[in-house]
Amino acid sequence: MSTRPLFVVAGVGNGTGDRVFSKAGYRVALIARNAEHLKKTADEINATGGEAVAFPVPSYAYSDIASVFDKIRAHQWASGGRTELRAALFNAGAGVWKPFLDVTEADVALITETNVTAAFAFARQVLLAFKQNEVDEKGKRGTLLFTGATASIRGNVTTSAFAAGKFALRALSQSLNKEFGKQNIHVAHAIIDGGILTDLSLSRRQGDPEWKSNGDIRLDPESIGKSYLYLANQDRSAWTWELDLRPAHEKW
Amino acid sequence: MSTRPLFVVAGVGNGTGDRVFSKAGYRVALIARNAEHLKKTADEINATGGEAVAFPVPSYAYSDIASVFDKIRAHQWASGGRTELRAALFNAGAGVWKPFLDVTEADVALITETNVTAAFAFARQVLLAFKQNEVDEKGKRGTLLFTGATASIRGNVTTSAFAAGKFALRALSQSLNKEFGKQNIHVAHAIIDGGILTDLSLSRRQGDPEWKSNGDIRLDPESIGKSYLYLANQDRSAWTWELDLRPAHEKW
Amino acid sequence: MSTRPLFVVAGVGNGTGDRVFSKAGYRVALIARNAEHLKKTADEINATGGEAVAFPVPSYAYSDIASVFDKIRAHQWASGGRTELRAALFNAGAGVWKPFLDVTEADVALITETNVTAAFAFARQVLLAFKQNEVDEKGKRGTLLFTGATASIRGNVTTSAFAAGKFALRALSQSLNKEFGKQNIHVAHAIIDGGILTDLSLSRRQGDPEWKSNGDIRLDPESIGKSYLYLANQDRSAWTWELDLRPAHEKW
Amino acid sequence: MSTRPLFVVAGVGNGTGDRVFSKAGYRVALIARNAEHLKKTADEINATGGEAVAFPVPSYAYSDIASVFDKIRAHQWASGGRTELRAALFNAGAGVWKPFLDVTEADVALITETNVTAAFAFARQVLLAFKQNEVDEKGKRGTLLFTGATASIRGNVTTSAFAAGKFALRALSQSLNKEFGKQNIHVAHAIIDGGILTDLSLSRRQGDPEWKSNGDIRLDPESIGKSYLYLANQDRSAWTWELDLRPAHEKW
Repeated sequence: MSTRPLFVVAGVGNGTGDRVFSKAGYRVALIARNAEHLKKTADEINATGGEAVAFPVPSYAYSDIASVFDKIRAHQWASGGRTELRAALFNAGAGVWKPFLDVTEADVALITETNVTAAFAFARQVLLAFKQNEVDEKGKRGTLLFTGATASIRGNVTTSAFAAGKFALRALSQSLNKEFGKQNIHVAHAIIDGGILTDLSLSRRQGDPEWKSNGDIRLDPESIGKSYLYLANQDRSAWTWELDLRPAHEKW
Repeated sequence: MSTRPLFVVAGVGNGTGDRVFSKAGYRVALIARNAEHLKKTADEINATGGEAVAFPVPSYAYSDIASVFDKIRAHQWASGGRTELRAALFNAGAGVWKPFLDVTEADVALITETNVTAAFAFARQVLLAFKQNEVDEKGKRGTLLFTGATASIRGNVTTSAFAAGKFALRALSQSLNKEFGKQNIHVAHAIIDGGILTDLSLSRRQGDPEWKSNGDIRLDPESIGKSYLYLANQDRSAWTWELDLRPAHEKW
Repeated sequence: MSTRPLFVVAGVGNGTGDRVFSKAGYRVALIARNAEHLKKTADEINATGGEAVAFPVPSYAYSDIASVFDKIRAHQWASGGRTELRAALFNAGAGVWKPFLDVTEADVALITETNVTAAFAFARQVLLAFKQNEVDEKGKRGTLLFTGATASIRGNVTTSAFAAGKFALRALSQSLNKEFGKQNIHVAHAIIDGGILTDLSLSRRQGDPEWKSNGDIRLDPESIGKSYLYLANQDRSAWTWELDLRPAHEKW
Repeated sequence: MSTRPLFVVAGVGNGTGDRVFSKAGYRVALIARNAEHLKKTADEINATGGEAVAFPVPSYAYSDIASVFDKIRAHQWASGGRTELRAALFNAGAGVWKPFLDVTEADVALITETNVTAAFAFARQVLLAFKQNEVDEKGKRGTLLFTGATASIRGNVTTSAFAAGKFALRALSQSLNKEFGKQNIHVAHAIIDGGILTDLSLSRRQGDPEWKSNGDIRLDPESIGKSYLYLANQDRSAWTWELDLRPAHEKW
């Protein structure tokens, strides 16, 4: 039984990364709160020759993240053989867009739990796993990716809560890049600047065919995924901490 | 009985701002967890002609911040007369400097509570109060200040937790500046880049006379306070969101 | 005959700094290309109790800047006594706002000469002079200020040329801050984000009374000047490299 | 006779990009001042199945850049057929690392000509050519790349001149990204943070085998080139303005 690389992603709402890493030969472990959506995503990947398993979590609390990694480690994968965690994506994140005085204590709790606490818990599990890996032919033990947004680098009038979470996540990713580079663990951060084509964003626009077909105005999840795969494939001599991604016609 | 401006500061550990605002005619409300240190600071200000009141809090939980503002509003000030909140400083912040894998769940909780949750709760109370104020001769309803650090703009090998908190705080301050400027409420953020001369930092250096006397190598709390007062005094036509402060000889 | 501090400013078009430093007791040396406007500004300062001298330059070429400092050094000041250069402001800067394909070779030459070459020449003269000074009671040999703009930190669709010049100037100021801090020479940079109330900006708006009187929507040159004076007065223990300045209601 | 894509690179000293784009099927036009080194690089590419032509320039003056593009357009390519400029890299840049007071007028002229003037001239020629192209299957008319450095985002004690040039170049690239994205022209900027393995850097280290073989401590030109090719291949829905590249063990 051979060893196959595993890609763990937390937060699969917009479908970035999972399919692309699956096609590239990774087994995929999907973590999210919405069990139904999670199962659907895993089914799709499995139906197209990939191997994905859904790991729903009740919340993004620190202990729930730790627990789900126990389950991932314990999992007997369908096609057999050992898995080795080689790539991980923290793609979770609650969005709160409100005037500041409408931001409630619960909103603040949600933002800090989802964007900060869960990210710390997730990064811990991933880094502990990476440290067990041998350095591969690219010069890496593993790649840990974080999804950021415009709000990662700029606060604005309705983003006091969201930007606080995203700034914090960016700080974490930068600190980890600096701390774990010496151990050949690659940590990177992508600033997604623009709307992403998803079932949700499409339905919000009543299926607007322009939104669906015009790659100049919104991001394609697969294109984002390709960028994540590119980062995972960068060799030791020239790797990236941060890049931005936006559609060609995006005003910024 | 006349109205006097009130300055509220949360986190008085390093003594920045309170004495300077007191000398400039503000009443001072001091919020912190360490009741003893708080009382000492208030006593010093009161002994030198100022008017300060200590408001200890059991924690920086959201509700504790809300409660302490109830107490501040209910307070009958010694010299009588109405107070009007005109300036506030969020100076709190837990520091955790550790390799990432030593950062515990409790550390993350501490960082998010102190730097993020408390800041949101504090800003809410302050902004609600400012909105009641008339625009003064400087063109302001009030000034809300945040104390940042080098870790507000740069993560590093032992600052995954601290930088996460400080980045988040900076995002909050920038968002609030953009949202409340139109209401003539001034929100600003100071990046303190260097060690501050405090009883604590001095004792850690065994009373090193160089640290005590050489203003080129560490920040003086009073000098920081003067910068905060300068920000509070900026008129509506030219105000600052962010400035950095460091000693002349600091390497950066 | 006593020694009086001298403030040299290059680029006096918007009147920032000169009047404020004059009122604060500085002699003022004014450098600019427009001799007529320069004389008018000097006359105004002299008419209100200050002491200003106009030093027109034919261009912002490197050698012209060097030459004008010879003239400043040779000048016999009206009220007698020695002057000591203690503060300087590089406020010059050509603005080119055009679609990129309309930017000509001459535009590029203008931008680089005015914003970069002249700034290097000016800084050289100022720093050589500061190095001759004793450290004063604030802990400084002198303060060198640079005026930046939004385009100092963000390129945009019509600012390829202007932003190139302003980014370069910011790099220079940051490098100088780091290099000369150890010699107690303070270098700072102000990002002016918004329109400034000047004769020119007012005439472009046909004397719009709102622009003239409403401090919430445009910067007052005197308010900018006060910020520059504040920077010059910061003591050695807590000085600023960079701050932003914008009107209260500015969208950013 | 078919049409083949052309890659133009200015500044070939460190060999980034040319070989990688050649292997990816591009014809390569090499622009630099050192004719000998240029010929050697072209010969190497041609010897390994690529098609490269050397276009030496006497200087990086605006007119010299314009002239060399005339020659590139007039060139009859060895294997015949039309070329279509589809990718370009501005990789030139003079480095001046000196204490500020040692920076001469000539240094400033060199820095502004090489990093700023030449970049404007080069970008103009490239963008005019791109505008003639049809949008390709990736959604692009062409990709214009700029090589930056740590000094693009941070001035330091010996980089007043170098950082001024590199900051300016970054401003140009950002402005162009924003201006030409709507025309499906992709402009990107790479921050190279670390030493690059070149003949020169190796000889400076007396052929140090560690420097030669250890990808963790210096950048490989081919790895940088792969990143440039990745950027050129990004599709319209998710493209990057800026990324950083550094070796795994680089301290930053």
